[in-house]
Amino acid sequence: MLFIPSYSVRMPKGEMRKPLLGDLRGPNQPLCDLGSRTVGILGSGDFSRSLAWRLVASGVRVVVGSRNPKRSTGLFPEEVEVTSHQEASAQAHVIFIALFPEHYSTLVSLKGVLAGKVLVDVSNSLKLNHDRPSNAELLATVLPESTVVKGFNVVSAWALLNRPHDGNKQVLICSDSCEAKNTVIILARTMGFIPVDMGCLSSARDIENAPLRLFPSWSTPVLCWIGLFSFFYTYNFVRSVLLPYVVKGQNVFYKLPVETVNKTFPSVSLVMLGLVYLPGLLASVQQLRRGTKYQQFPGWLDRWLCMRKQLGLLSFFSAALHAVYSLCLPMRRSARYELLNAAFKQVKEGKENSWVEEEVWRMELYVSLGILALGLLSLLAVTSLPSLGNSLNWREFSFIQSKLGCVALTVAILHTLMFGWGRAFDKTQYRFYLPPTFVLVLILPCVVLVARLSLALPYVSHRLERIRRGWEVGPWVHFQQQECHSSLEGVSTV
Amino acid sequence: MLFIPSYSVRMPKGEMRKPLLGDLRGPNQPLCDLGSRTVGILGSGDFSRSLAWRLVASGVRVVVGSRNPKRSTGLFPEEVEVTSHQEASAQAHVIFIALFPEHYSTLVSLKGVLAGKVLVDVSNSLKLNHDRPSNAELLATVLPESTVVKGFNVVSAWALLNRPHDGNKQVLICSDSCEAKNTVIILARTMGFIPVDMGCLSSARDIENAPLRLFPSWSTPVLCWIGLFSFFYTYNFVRSVLLPYVVKGQNVFYKLPVETVNKTFPSVSLVMLGLVYLPGLLASVQQLRRGTKYQQFPGWLDRWLCMRKQLGLLSFFSAALHAVYSLCLPMRRSARYELLNAAFKQVKEGKENSWVEEEVWRMELYVSLGILALGLLSLLAVTSLPSLGNSLNWREFSFIQSKLGCVALTVAILHTLMFGWGRAFDKTQYRFYLPPTFVLVLILPCVVLVARLSLALPYVSHRLERIRRGWEVGPWVHFQQQECHSSLEGVSTV
Amino acid sequence: MLFIPSYSVRMPKGEMRKPLLGDLRGPNQPLCDLGSRTVGILGSGDFSRSLAWRLVASGVRVVVGSRNPKRSTGLFPEEVEVTSHQEASAQAHVIFIALFPEHYSTLVSLKGVLAGKVLVDVSNSLKLNHDRPSNAELLATVLPESTVVKGFNVVSAWALLNRPHDGNKQVLICSDSCEAKNTVIILARTMGFIPVDMGCLSSARDIENAPLRLFPSWSTPVLCWIGLFSFFYTYNFVRSVLLPYVVKGQNVFYKLPVETVNKTFPSVSLVMLGLVYLPGLLASVQQLRRGTKYQQFPGWLDRWLCMRKQLGLLSFFSAALHAVYSLCLPMRRSARYELLNAAFKQVKEGKENSWVEEEVWRMELYVSLGILALGLLSLLAVTSLPSLGNSLNWREFSFIQSKLGCVALTVAILHTLMFGWGRAFDKTQYRFYLPPTFVLVLILPCVVLVARLSLALPYVSHRLERIRRGWEVGPWVHFQQQECHSSLEGVSTV
Repeated sequence: MLFIPSYSVRMPKGEMRKPLLGDLRGPNQPLCDLGSRTVGILGSGDFSRSLAWRLVASGVRVVVGSRNPKRSTGLFPEEVEVTSHQEASAQAHVIFIALFPEHYSTLVSLKGVLAGKVLVDVSNSLKLNHDRPSNAELLATVLPESTVVKGFNVVSAWALLNRPHDGNKQVLICSDSCEAKNTVIILARTMGFIPVDMGCLSSARDIENAPLRLFPSWSTPVLCWIGLFSFFYTYNFVRSVLLPYVVKGQNVFYKLPVETVNKTFPSVSLVMLGLVYLPGLLASVQQLRRGTKYQQFPGWLDRWLCMRKQLGLLSFFSAALHAVYSLCLPMRRSARYELLNAAFKQVKEGKENSWVEEEVWRMELYVSLGILALGLLSLLAVTSLPSLGNSLNWREFSFIQSKLGCVALTVAILHTLMFGWGRAFDKTQYRFYLPPTFVLVLILPCVVLVARLSLALPYVSHRLERIRRGWEVGPWVHFQQQECHSSLEGVSTV
Repeated sequence: MLFIPSYSVRMPKGEMRKPLLGDLRGPNQPLCDLGSRTVGILGSGDFSRSLAWRLVASGVRVVVGSRNPKRSTGLFPEEVEVTSHQEASAQAHVIFIALFPEHYSTLVSLKGVLAGKVLVDVSNSLKLNHDRPSNAELLATVLPESTVVKGFNVVSAWALLNRPHDGNKQVLICSDSCEAKNTVIILARTMGFIPVDMGCLSSARDIENAPLRLFPSWSTPVLCWIGLFSFFYTYNFVRSVLLPYVVKGQNVFYKLPVETVNKTFPSVSLVMLGLVYLPGLLASVQQLRRGTKYQQFPGWLDRWLCMRKQLGLLSFFSAALHAVYSLCLPMRRSARYELLNAAFKQVKEGKENSWVEEEVWRMELYVSLGILALGLLSLLAVTSLPSLGNSLNWREFSFIQSKLGCVALTVAILHTLMFGWGRAFDKTQYRFYLPPTFVLVLILPCVVLVARLSLALPYVSHRLERIRRGWEVGPWVHFQQQECHSSLEGVSTV
Repeated sequence: MLFIPSYSVRMPKGEMRKPLLGDLRGPNQPLCDLGSRTVGILGSGDFSRSLAWRLVASGVRVVVGSRNPKRSTGLFPEEVEVTSHQEASAQAHVIFIALFPEHYSTLVSLKGVLAGKVLVDVSNSLKLNHDRPSNAELLATVLPESTVVKGFNVVSAWALLNRPHDGNKQVLICSDSCEAKNTVIILARTMGFIPVDMGCLSSARDIENAPLRLFPSWSTPVLCWIGLFSFFYTYNFVRSVLLPYVVKGQNVFYKLPVETVNKTFPSVSLVMLGLVYLPGLLASVQQLRRGTKYQQFPGWLDRWLCMRKQLGLLSFFSAALHAVYSLCLPMRRSARYELLNAAFKQVKEGKENSWVEEEVWRMELYVSLGILALGLLSLLAVTSLPSLGNSLNWREFSFIQSKLGCVALTVAILHTLMFGWGRAFDKTQYRFYLPPTFVLVLILPCVVLVARLSLALPYVSHRLERIRRGWEVGPWVHFQQQECHSSLEGVSTV
């Protein structure tokens, strides 16, 4: 639905450029003369038909090879010649292989006519493939005398049929032959896609896996978010709504949609912010203990380090929602009624001034620190946009994510402490033997902050920096100093 | 004003590298030795002067061909040699043609000296060109022995003169010759621009049309937004402000700047969200009726489908403004006065507790659903940023825009229903025979939601999926199954 | 922490592809057959070790040249052969030079064995280099018979060791040889980076300076922001908090964290918005006075023009924080207590209706204009994202930044005037001889607006447009008209 196109020169709508009839074949024809070039497609399925439509609309002459040409003719635009596999292969220099990989072996019979030609493998895997060779590599094995280019598999038949208005217009292309890749890249551009050169054919497996992804890097962080949200929501529900109802008969169920949620979001946000900075600390501790950085982290730590950006974005999202919920509080009817009742009570009691200086200060500081924390988190989130991130060098990126991030964590902790104020030491707050939520929430972030500060102690930080510059504890230190990449490697892991 | 540069290595300021005097011409000189290469410019107008300034500042030797060299000399930097067209063409291998396209025919006299050289066509059209050949193609026809490269037309003379601090630094370049294109690409990079290879010279028309665009895809959606806004604003004004004044003499004109606007924005937002999902449904219905996806949609539906992202973004923008307006409500003086008066009244009436449980619940749910809907719309809007959209594959994009979008629509409808609550069936709300705004607003989104749900009925959805996988109702279905692009094509149109 | 990766095909984790043993050397081997190719590294320091790890993990055979092979062997993965400089250079065709530039002269002894090979210079400068030749050019001078490619210096040893999960994955590469550059580009892609072709080796100095930047374009705008913030905060503190305390004994120190800050942010925002549009006006005035655009602006004006985007973003950031602070106002305890006390007072006075029509209107207009101004500034800020800015042509960019920006400035001024209302002419507001803040704030923006409007006067704007189209006051005007780049150059400087 919502998509702002990157720079694209739009093809005039509905235009159907007639291909020139003069039809030259072979690798010597000029690269750009697409009108006079015939492109072949083997297969007459859905993708083949969509591809043919798009190629014809882009002004390219198309010949389709089908196992049953008579039957298939009606399925293609009338500009397309539908003939046998053999005949189609003979007419074209660039040939799309729109068959199931299971049928690649049948192409052996076309070995002769396909020799020296450019074959475009458009197939997809049905499931993620980590160890088997890719379909494209399989095709290259079956037809070693042809040049295989992998591409167009990330494009759906639907996108081919309906020029891509929105969504990703990138077409990932790889091949071991620069020339063949170039031809396909120009063809992709002519069709209105944005070709991306992915290098050698060994990237084909990754390209085939690409369309199967569904937010792989988000699943654990989102599960973690859901878990934390459920825990804190339940805790708040039991402590502030259910137990008061059961024990004292107070009916405050109206707090469920807004107030309880608004207590839960900041808890989740702060704990996740702690989870963002924890793995970096663990990594530093391991490096300190082993005295070297040239040892791999355990798998779980490695995966956790990879998840920091997602954890951070979810933390920011929770914080932003907490802000919106908080801003909505005075808008609610319940706030209005409470205020009116308080006014009534004040009048009845004849209390001219209800001002409580301590409460005022607590709230002003609480609000101010909260806005500051949200502002810092926004900066972190904005610099995580790919286009902005690519405009930062490592020094700038590390400054923002490490320094600013740490300040944001500190401010968020102070914000929570302001909320708590004296209540952490107030016995009545531990009703039903459950501590207030903010006490639970603060544990992890405070541990992270203290650990972080200990790593900044002079001796520890000196040792850590030496390790990160590539030194190891041992007699070869001085030798090491001579031959080493200058400066700037000390990008901290946190 | 506001622009964060993408990764750019800045040229040291004010530096003016002196070109080497040793001046080699011809295609055999090394690509990178720009200092020893002379670039020619034919024409001595504004663009020519700006181009010369920039080339000289980039360390390139420049020779300008003018019809009146004596007169023009003073207009160019002193490093530039100004001479006749003939002489300038002879000295350089790469020559910018900074003349009006109307004067291209005069270049015929230079045919001999320009043969084999690279000519850069920098001209623009004065109006959008859909059918005539591009200026660059015209130039190629006039001088068939030269190699024409289209480029630099998207850059203004101003941007040339004042290195581009902000704005788009991309220079679109196309040519039928790879070698010539490469030379101009390196030249563009040397001048501090980001060259974009647009393929063959047949793209020249699109490149010439590019600078003439002024948000072409936004005009209809914005007009639609303005129309809806005007309608709902007028309706709310008449119903809530004008008629109460005329009929009952109530002066509530103070509601015009905030309250009426805040009733209008959510109405516009929800109706436009309905308009985002309606065309996809119409497309599905057409496919279901015709039993095939291989038939073009009518023109209006096609245009509508292309507009969905813009409609969606305007819907999000309206929703965000509605949120800000709502949050501002308790900040206003009028809210304060009303509250004080209510407190006064309550005290006078001696009513200790003004709590109305139903109103409380209605408001809590209303607020909570509103925040949820805004959060979902934000996600949709953020993923529509080009750099983020390009990081999603079709499966992820379709998941967000189709699934999440549909959930957002549902939540927004619930949010509106909570606002309405029992009022839709309250006779007094139909004062002056005008139904409450939210009743009008809900019609379209509810129709869309119901239609959407009907398409998800088992039989319908099965048939639709078969059609989208490329099947048609007919005897060839089983044959079809064998030769077809595997999986993933069923990206829904909604 | 927070980073959403651009499109990347992830390398299966932890996989360590064994390099093939068959080892071919020389430039004729196929580009993609990395497994059978040996890459050399001279030097055994930190960067060298990290590079070796990454190359081995990418399936490339690595041979390292060290001055003390025996000592160094243990430092590298076991797949790596560690030998002498001479031996390593002989085995590989592509050789990374991971030495300090100070030691490049020692490579002269390897001149023979390195001749014809591709040397990758990965070194960094220790400080910004504006006049000396780059390390890579130095290397090319020392070894003129080898081909030097600059690259990988923007990558840290840390990023090499821990595949780049987040942050900038771009590797800037330049060389005078297309073929050598291509080889290194493919190598970079194989290692999981995104290679960016930066053109000729003369770009090496810029590439070496790149990692040393720390927000160079932001320092002056941020200092300017800090200065303005300090000034206005102090002014507000003295006028609204300190003097009332000293003179009248009023204790309103609780206003410091929120109210004073919330008065300061909009002041800073509006003044900075004025500073965004002032330099463009000064530039126009200079052009008008000199009658030509072909004269450089003074250095300070040029630098100021370059800073407009940063100033604008800081203005937007301040405005957004002002909005959040304002929205938080009714949430505070102090607001609650004041309201309760006001209710008490109203009841005591028996005043049934406290409504003040003028105050109501002032506030409604104030709020409405504020939201409008923020909405417009948001649009300006969003289009300043690199990926969105690149999707706009100059006409669209200029429309948004110049037209919309000017409307935003006007609306912001009106918003401030609404806040002031009659107070600017109210003597009591000038207590302690200090005018209200908003009077100070309005001076600059109003001057800018008036100047901007004067430039739009028919005669002035006509003259200005002629100058911007490249004309100069003089007898050659008519000649000029004939040869000039058509249309669209008049992109205004404002």
